[in-house]
Amino acid sequence: MQRKSFGSMACPVARSLERVGEWWSILILRDALRGTTRFDQFQKSLGIAPNMLTRRLNALVAAGLLERHRYSEHPPRDEYVLTARGRDFRMVTVALLTWGNRHFAPEGPSVLLVDSESGVPVDPVLVDRKTGRPITEAGHRYVAGPAAGARVRKRNRAIASDLTTAKPKPSARRRATRARTSP
Amino acid sequence: MQRKSFGSMACPVARSLERVGEWWSILILRDALRGTTRFDQFQKSLGIAPNMLTRRLNALVAAGLLERHRYSEHPPRDEYVLTARGRDFRMVTVALLTWGNRHFAPEGPSVLLVDSESGVPVDPVLVDRKTGRPITEAGHRYVAGPAAGARVRKRNRAIASDLTTAKPKPSARRRATRARTSP
Repeated sequence: MQRKSFGSMACPVARSLERVGEWWSILILRDALRGTTRFDQFQKSLGIAPNMLTRRLNALVAAGLLERHRYSEHPPRDEYVLTARGRDFRMVTVALLTWGNRHFAPEGPSVLLVDSESGVPVDPVLVDRKTGRPITEAGHRYVAGPAAGARVRKRNRAIASDLTTAKPKPSARRRATRARTSP
Repeated sequence: MQRKSFGSMACPVARSLERVGEWWSILILRDALRGTTRFDQFQKSLGIAPNMLTRRLNALVAAGLLERHRYSEHPPRDEYVLTARGRDFRMVTVALLTWGNRHFAPEGPSVLLVDSESGVPVDPVLVDRKTGRPITEAGHRYVAGPAAGARVRKRNRAIASDLTTAKPKPSARRRATRARTSP
């Protein structure tokens, strides 16, 4: 399927998605973050077609998330090692794990993240590194950054005005609808 | 493009990916988390084809991330409101934003997450809710949970044994390679 490139979007979420390409890439990174480095290990874990795996690994190398190291010359064999950028993606896979366990594991979690020393399962939450305050919907908001172009600024203004417009109650909504649809 | 279903995988990362379907879904959730609710707002923000947007919104409603509310009968118009499950996805988009700003914004960030009161940009980091300790590669590990099936247990064992096998140094590797390739 042809898909639009998100790389030209200024939004950091879109740019991140452009780099990890698609689900296979995220699952490859998940495995890499758990110590997998070799082609046949990835293939076994994921049940992915070899040509697809080659393509995804190449894309992750090109995006600077994995580095290729030759560990055998005869036969030629490479292993794929996470770069600092790739290791930093851990934050995203831990967030996906936490969300998945919370909402899509009705039979209970099948994978848990635990404290290495105590073995106690952890409950990951996002906080501000400096203040330690949890990142919440009410306590934080998005603003245009120093490098924001016209598109991002416009969207931020549009969203800000959406949010400051008090949401009409159902009755007021009906009135507004009538007003809009009347000639 | 036909793609394998990840829903049958026990891994919570794979299950999460199954539900958010593809990039458009994540970008729709990003906008929803910033207050967008209406079809034309999503379309304007994303520059997405209407039939694709309809399909992705329907999938997010089916997955229990958005709820459809009719706000106008004439003409019929729906808005899409995040459920608790959808709001909880914020953790993932904040992680993607943080990672994107750190690695793919060479010109500086174009979007920042700030403290609503002080306006000071925050630096999101994952910590354990109970202990407050940052989630790190060294300090935490994945283990099979109570609902883990044979597949997950096997993979966890395989990974654990990979990790406990001390990584050979380059010279040792070459020796090992020679040993393997000799008759």
